[in-house]
Amino acid sequence: MSVSTPLQDEAQQQLTAGDVPAYMQALGKAARSAASELRRADTGIKNRALESIAQQLMAARARILGANAQDMQRGKENGLDSALLDRLALDDARFDAMIEGLRQVAALPDPVGEIDDMSYRPSGIQVGKMRVPLGVIGIIYESRPNVTLEAASLCLKSGNACILRGGSEASASNQTIGECITQGLVDVGLPANCVQVVATTDRAAVGALISMPDYVDVIIPRGGKSLIERISRDAKVPVIKHLDGVCHVYIDTTADPAKAMAIAVNAKTHRYGTCNTMETLLVDAPIADLLLPELARAYAGHEVELRGCERTQALLPQALAASEDDWYAEYLAPVLAIKIVDGVEEAIAHIERYGSHHTDAIVTQDYSLARRFMAEVDSSSVIVNASTRFADGFEYGLGAEIGISTDKLHARGPVGLEGLTTRKYVVFGDGQVRQ
Amino acid sequence: MSVSTPLQDEAQQQLTAGDVPAYMQALGKAARSAASELRRADTGIKNRALESIAQQLMAARARILGANAQDMQRGKENGLDSALLDRLALDDARFDAMIEGLRQVAALPDPVGEIDDMSYRPSGIQVGKMRVPLGVIGIIYESRPNVTLEAASLCLKSGNACILRGGSEASASNQTIGECITQGLVDVGLPANCVQVVATTDRAAVGALISMPDYVDVIIPRGGKSLIERISRDAKVPVIKHLDGVCHVYIDTTADPAKAMAIAVNAKTHRYGTCNTMETLLVDAPIADLLLPELARAYAGHEVELRGCERTQALLPQALAASEDDWYAEYLAPVLAIKIVDGVEEAIAHIERYGSHHTDAIVTQDYSLARRFMAEVDSSSVIVNASTRFADGFEYGLGAEIGISTDKLHARGPVGLEGLTTRKYVVFGDGQVRQ
Repeated sequence: MSVSTPLQDEAQQQLTAGDVPAYMQALGKAARSAASELRRADTGIKNRALESIAQQLMAARARILGANAQDMQRGKENGLDSALLDRLALDDARFDAMIEGLRQVAALPDPVGEIDDMSYRPSGIQVGKMRVPLGVIGIIYESRPNVTLEAASLCLKSGNACILRGGSEASASNQTIGECITQGLVDVGLPANCVQVVATTDRAAVGALISMPDYVDVIIPRGGKSLIERISRDAKVPVIKHLDGVCHVYIDTTADPAKAMAIAVNAKTHRYGTCNTMETLLVDAPIADLLLPELARAYAGHEVELRGCERTQALLPQALAASEDDWYAEYLAPVLAIKIVDGVEEAIAHIERYGSHHTDAIVTQDYSLARRFMAEVDSSSVIVNASTRFADGFEYGLGAEIGISTDKLHARGPVGLEGLTTRKYVVFGDGQVRQ
Repeated sequence: MSVSTPLQDEAQQQLTAGDVPAYMQALGKAARSAASELRRADTGIKNRALESIAQQLMAARARILGANAQDMQRGKENGLDSALLDRLALDDARFDAMIEGLRQVAALPDPVGEIDDMSYRPSGIQVGKMRVPLGVIGIIYESRPNVTLEAASLCLKSGNACILRGGSEASASNQTIGECITQGLVDVGLPANCVQVVATTDRAAVGALISMPDYVDVIIPRGGKSLIERISRDAKVPVIKHLDGVCHVYIDTTADPAKAMAIAVNAKTHRYGTCNTMETLLVDAPIADLLLPELARAYAGHEVELRGCERTQALLPQALAASEDDWYAEYLAPVLAIKIVDGVEEAIAHIERYGSHHTDAIVTQDYSLARRFMAEVDSSSVIVNASTRFADGFEYGLGAEIGISTDKLHARGPVGLEGLTTRKYVVFGDGQVRQ
């Protein structure tokens, strides 16, 4: 690297000495210092930094693809499965999409500094709430090297310094992308340490990153459920987490059958491995005879395995018997649990008991039922007459998402730039004192 | 009690058996069940419940004051200090204020169900964010029995069930108030378990309450710093916490001297024990000669002890020497640290290094300095030309506050009804599927 700071040098020395906790502390200290400069950066310089990073990346395309080829080679030697290798791979099309994503973030409105709810109080002071960065964000993720750029650009645009800890399988790709980001920041005069890619694959780095409340304000883990549960359990810092998506579609008797068919098929078969995919279909008893046989034919065309309650099996002999575990299952696979229920009340009770409060939908033409489902289902996304697959930052217009939160506090559902900020009270007076 | 439910009976049995963790689990289960009914309660019934509770309390005035007299008697026998006894005491005036506060909460707008940011997306779906209750809130507090009613009314209005764990010194008062709340809820047809006052003074109850993520969504501790730190460290549930308030006023050279005097005196002397009281005064060097001697006379009139940097001592020989610890100190007492600084940059750096990110103010007539201070100081309240003492839910127009958050995530600064809610995405479609 041609750019370095005293704090980076300190970090580098600790790394050379093999002291991973001290290395992470040095990164943390550097991030905290960069964060207080980045907090005051205006929208213009943040956007210029994003464009400058795009330029650096484009100039380094061959070097990045070369580093990725090394990662792929090592991954194959280490016996990574094909799904992981696919997520790891960068090619020209993915590279272009990465740059395009970066420019989309630059084009988003800057949330920092927005003031809401400004009003005068009887004392004469004027009070409002200003949106401000969180500070330092630690992101822990796996395989996909484009997350390095996505996370860096979202943190940068929202005025946060970040420390990025990608998977060891992508280390050469991530380091090379990180170098381009650093150069892009420095070229426009922002601190190099606004974005730091952890340069060791030692697992102790994760433990250190989640245990530095003085230097890290929030951790966002992206990966499998067990990784996220482990991080949440051990973290000494708040975690914005994304656990399971056991999503439901409830088809009410008044549903338009064509819409119900389209939604039920799309919610299950559009993609199997995503958290907003339907895992359980609930069908109101009076419409089940009409709908289920036709739906079963559609699912058969997609080779979706059906597991049903007894009443479902009576209509669909090809369905296996669903066990209690099936109602809790996030299959992430071409498997669907189906239950026939007696009305919206039973549907809501089922969702409350077995669901994961992620995304649940009703298909109905009844105004009061739609209103009731909307009010009573306690999920991060509640949908009327559309596919659960819409529960996504891009589809919701956030521009980009850093993840989907299954927490209730702070951010719930898809998390975009706004979820990476907090609000402080601002007060303007003219000499007022408290009586 | 004349009203009980099967779940209350279960809790009562566990309590009688002396199994505190099982008792708390039973309360948790009952709260979760009440929360899903309360979530769907409309504004009208919640307001009627608050009024019905007011009626119950007024009818039980003599009984509540009698229970409080028992608590006071026991407190004196146990040697509670006079400050604690004062906080514990209820008299007719405090009782009336408690009822008045309850009616103010009833009069506040209901945050539940508000939908913001509703817009159409290119796919044709309509997306917005609906404000909804958090679920079950556990509140842990000390001595003041009116907190029982305040907390219950704010949770009820925001659609949350709550479990209230007051201090053992106030147990008779809290139990009696709790009985009135239960009766008030039942009279309007809401579940008795919407508000539950923990009926044991066993400390194991706190440990159990903060370790039930299945039944409790968030813990709000109200009390001393050591209590809050202990709870935050041990909790398995998110905590909205209020730690220290090391608040600053910075007087810039361009400040209007009369306003600067008024603000500096009010911020220190209006009340000493509050978290938004100024603890350190920062004075820009060129205005120090003019301002400090006069300010020192004003503080002398309030018997405030001054501790200054060397330059301050040169102007005010009566000031003691401030040590490094003084800059970090939250005195909560008639003591003030004073530092002369060279300009806003040094002031902001001092606040960042020593402050607690609670509330900080600038006194200035300079537009650009005001704007800079506002943007760069990373505190939950940033104030221009007014006393730090305004950092308060009532002064900010929240109507009432459950506490002040020193956290950055979720709620920051004074927390009112809105801080007791979260937002879910709501989507209205007409058969849309994801392409």
